[in-house]
Amino acid sequence: MQQQISVITLGVDNLLRAKHFYGQGFGWTPVFEAEEIVFFQMNGLMLGLWAKRALLEDMRRTSPTPGAMTLAHNVGSREEVSPLMARLVLAGGTLLRSADSPPHGGFRGYVADPDGHAWEIAYNPAWTIDADGHVAFGI
Amino acid sequence: MQQQISVITLGVDNLLRAKHFYGQGFGWTPVFEAEEIVFFQMNGLMLGLWAKRALLEDMRRTSPTPGAMTLAHNVGSREEVSPLMARLVLAGGTLLRSADSPPHGGFRGYVADPDGHAWEIAYNPAWTIDADGHVAFGI
Repeated sequence: MQQQISVITLGVDNLLRAKHFYGQGFGWTPVFEAEEIVFFQMNGLMLGLWAKRALLEDMRRTSPTPGAMTLAHNVGSREEVSPLMARLVLAGGTLLRSADSPPHGGFRGYVADPDGHAWEIAYNPAWTIDADGHVAFGI
Repeated sequence: MQQQISVITLGVDNLLRAKHFYGQGFGWTPVFEAEEIVFFQMNGLMLGLWAKRALLEDMRRTSPTPGAMTLAHNVGSREEVSPLMARLVLAGGTLLRSADSPPHGGFRGYVADPDGHAWEIAYNPAWTIDADGHVAFGI
């Protein structure tokens, strides 16, 4: 079995608002757009934004809980963390935790997207990110 | 800004139970294990399982909502979908939706992991997956 995740699909209440957040906040460009769904080609997988109602119906879930998870976007230096977080808040995100240093090193903070999905913005000097955005574990 | 997701971190109530699900269900091997956290090297990003209490504390979130999201693992043929779903249920997962064909083609179903995190198991003939598990958009 490949150790592979193909898609992360986030349910959103307002697709225009979510597209603004990811387009203006992260600066990402969609690879596909339709009336209720948008895909971004990421580093070896897809990020999808889909109308929450349609996603829950597709999953056969009436309640969207649990949500104890976070996505992370790692950057190349400590100095890039807080400016990106500020940009995400300007684009409609909500600050969850200002950036500081975790016990394991590096620097990180958290911003929720307009639908409440959490993003950790982190500098982790132990993990490499190649030019294609592929992240490799290191300690 | 790289179109890049570095880590998906799932909060779990019982790390042993979660490791069993991912190890026996998907057949995945961790790259790092500590008392409260496990990492899997995936296709250009990390999958982390972390004690839910610690994750929520790290995120400064008291409530784990919202959870309107799903991860997906795509396989190479329609015939692989249902057997993998059965294996995931045997490993402690909960069936959300038996596999059938969505309007956009292919074949998919949903299983929740022991902590309720949703996984779509899908065959999507339009999207390519290379030998390294990197998924590319196609229509």
